[in-house]
Amino acid sequence: MTESNFTHEDSRADELSHAEVYIELHQDKDFIDELVAHIESDSPDNVFNFLEPYNAADVADLMEVLSYKERRDLIRLLGEKLDPEVLSEIEGSAQDDLYDQLSNEQIADAVTDMEIDDAVYVIEELDEEDRSEVLSALPHDDREAIKESLSYPEDSAGRMMQKDLVALPEFWSVGQAIDLLRDQSSDLPEDFYDVFVVSPIHHPVGKVSLAKIMRARRSTKIQSIMEQDPPTVNVMADQEEVAYRFTKYHLISAAVTDENNRLVGMITVDDVVDVIEEEAEEDILALAGVGEESMGDSVFSISKDRFKWLFVNLLTAILASLVIGLYEQTIEKLVALAVLMPIVASMGGNAATQTMTVTVRALATKEISPANASRSVWKEFKVAMINGIFLSLISGGVAVLWFGNPLLGSVFAAAMIFNLMCAGLCGILIPLSIDKLGQDPAIASSVFVTTITDVIGFFAFLGLATVVLPPL
Amino acid sequence: MTESNFTHEDSRADELSHAEVYIELHQDKDFIDELVAHIESDSPDNVFNFLEPYNAADVADLMEVLSYKERRDLIRLLGEKLDPEVLSEIEGSAQDDLYDQLSNEQIADAVTDMEIDDAVYVIEELDEEDRSEVLSALPHDDREAIKESLSYPEDSAGRMMQKDLVALPEFWSVGQAIDLLRDQSSDLPEDFYDVFVVSPIHHPVGKVSLAKIMRARRSTKIQSIMEQDPPTVNVMADQEEVAYRFTKYHLISAAVTDENNRLVGMITVDDVVDVIEEEAEEDILALAGVGEESMGDSVFSISKDRFKWLFVNLLTAILASLVIGLYEQTIEKLVALAVLMPIVASMGGNAATQTMTVTVRALATKEISPANASRSVWKEFKVAMINGIFLSLISGGVAVLWFGNPLLGSVFAAAMIFNLMCAGLCGILIPLSIDKLGQDPAIASSVFVTTITDVIGFFAFLGLATVVLPPL
Repeated sequence: MTESNFTHEDSRADELSHAEVYIELHQDKDFIDELVAHIESDSPDNVFNFLEPYNAADVADLMEVLSYKERRDLIRLLGEKLDPEVLSEIEGSAQDDLYDQLSNEQIADAVTDMEIDDAVYVIEELDEEDRSEVLSALPHDDREAIKESLSYPEDSAGRMMQKDLVALPEFWSVGQAIDLLRDQSSDLPEDFYDVFVVSPIHHPVGKVSLAKIMRARRSTKIQSIMEQDPPTVNVMADQEEVAYRFTKYHLISAAVTDENNRLVGMITVDDVVDVIEEEAEEDILALAGVGEESMGDSVFSISKDRFKWLFVNLLTAILASLVIGLYEQTIEKLVALAVLMPIVASMGGNAATQTMTVTVRALATKEISPANASRSVWKEFKVAMINGIFLSLISGGVAVLWFGNPLLGSVFAAAMIFNLMCAGLCGILIPLSIDKLGQDPAIASSVFVTTITDVIGFFAFLGLATVVLPPL
Repeated sequence: MTESNFTHEDSRADELSHAEVYIELHQDKDFIDELVAHIESDSPDNVFNFLEPYNAADVADLMEVLSYKERRDLIRLLGEKLDPEVLSEIEGSAQDDLYDQLSNEQIADAVTDMEIDDAVYVIEELDEEDRSEVLSALPHDDREAIKESLSYPEDSAGRMMQKDLVALPEFWSVGQAIDLLRDQSSDLPEDFYDVFVVSPIHHPVGKVSLAKIMRARRSTKIQSIMEQDPPTVNVMADQEEVAYRFTKYHLISAAVTDENNRLVGMITVDDVVDVIEEEAEEDILALAGVGEESMGDSVFSISKDRFKWLFVNLLTAILASLVIGLYEQTIEKLVALAVLMPIVASMGGNAATQTMTVTVRALATKEISPANASRSVWKEFKVAMINGIFLSLISGGVAVLWFGNPLLGSVFAAAMIFNLMCAGLCGILIPLSIDKLGQDPAIASSVFVTTITDVIGFFAFLGLATVVLPPL
């Protein structure tokens, strides 16, 4: 194979500043056309030879952009030659299609070749019946390891960890450690970066990187070069907590401990990287009222998922409109109110969204906490006041120029500042409260926040207008 | 030190499911109160001994939650004993405060103890004058390495990489590699996980993990155990591209190459983890109209940053209101229109936000591409149609029940479906177009999308009502 890299390197790379240096295979229309042509030629050899130089991650991405039919044909043509790793790289509905098309026997064969954490990723996705069939087709040790992993809650450290690791007593020397690594090489994990040091009752008391062991003299005591009491992860910790610790302490691997602080497994950073992206992704989508959705999902499942949120929004929008309905007579007398009222609501909604988003992220990254929550609320109040003053002055001025009615302008400005202040407070207090109740603030905050700012905006503006404006 | 871990482990850990297992120090009100008491006691020893057991990352987080005055006092009390690593861990306005308070000499001392990538992180933050003063106070080699790093564009692979790495010719044996590592141990990076294999003209042709070297016999040829042509990173690549490759290929470290494909440095995953979080964070905040903002920023700078977006939103809201203004007479005749019109606009805005958010993320994660863009647009169109049909039927029904006017209900339903279809299309076409123009779709999409759905919503509903509804 002469292909020097897994993705095309753009030859203009050095001319570009530092924007897009790489064009990924699955973004390369010509490459995909060629692949489709090979699939249509219906020759297993053609397809296999064409894809052979590429990494499983690239093949998985390619499968995700193919149409349903192209994907099925590709899987059929590859047959036994399909790289098992593709099974643990593929996502979304392409993943379902692939697993559906393979026999349980084929899946079991592929899973046998995987590290336990990847195997669990595949098995988790199968329905109950397929799962037990695949499990029973596995070698005994793999089956037991996967079953143990599945006994931990979904998205817990227990599910992410691998059981294979290197643990040494602290009184060993570097030479003893190296000999052990060389002798036991077949039992070791495929890749590892740290060796854990344990006390006689198997508590993790230290960690040494392979680089340090490599550099030390054979006679050096492990104890003298180890990092003492490194951060560990509890086996029941949520994957979000795991990601937080890895990021904060710049970990490459971490010992996983059970409730008695005994070493039961190891998590490596490559699995955490996916979680970090996944968790940030979840927040972004949840704030916009979208569930976990991927490009490969069917139109029906996407529509159903988004419908829920739109339906809730319809109900809250109707609620806000009921408020307007209360003031129909006032609007009838001065239609300018109908013209201006969406501005009050829109500004409140946007200001609240800003504060809410910042708060949701600060909660996720643990920047906000009971220790500084009241300080943050006070700060948001001040920010809302400053922007409220400026924006209400501008808005009031615009209204006066537009409708030539100073009293209307004043009512508009007053409603604006009032709604912006409420928006700032709701924007922080609502996610904080939802978090305190143990719920995910990213999911529920938006509904409450926008409903409240709409309702308050209409109430403030139309209510004030009804009271203040002279009967026309 | 008896503290067995860097953060408190909750003793109820095993009783909890797998929610919050850890309470971080900077979230522990009692701990912070104690720290503040020590600061107020004005005893350098008290403060130092109290904080000594903790990791620099924890001390940095603690500084971020302290008030401006507490933080200054803490920095003064710690003096020379401040862990240099805190300088590279701290963020936001606490970072500015810390750097302001330290003399350039103190910063230079701290920087000298750091790895080059951390040193660059600190130096980047200084203003021009301080930067050259600190640089000239550094040892020659450090200064040159930092200057070279700074010569690469901000957020490029060149800035992230470190120059210290281990590169071997492919014909070496494992034994030779191990001897080199042991002999050159002082020149090696503090931690590394892979050894790079280079051709005679210094092109990276392979990579071997330390674990593999460790397990192999001394006589084994490096060539026979190396991973051939591993994914590399171009020195000019943006950090987002770097993060993408690390995630996709599950890399722990990657060779960085110049425009002639020569090995010039190495990036390790611990630095990439921060980037992944940062990039996702930027998208979330940008979509909500917030710039890079951290909890420690001043009220003034937060207000100014958010004001920009709110001001733009005010202009677009006025634009939408101008549309309403065109139909004042129609509204005067039927105030129900004023009651219902915000619902049309709100539903359009929400549907568009859903599609837009999914598209922005799909662009960021390279799930969407020229190869599948038209397929995605078609899909969004179908999703919008399905939800448009259901939601317009429900809305129309509600309007009929509420106002007892079937014609009004029909107009409302028609405007709703029309706006939802437009929202779906705008939600995907606008970010795609902005991306094609080389701009960040997360930043500008929201403004366009919400303006268009508001304007179209009001136009469709009020315009149709003017044409269809009988003069009352």
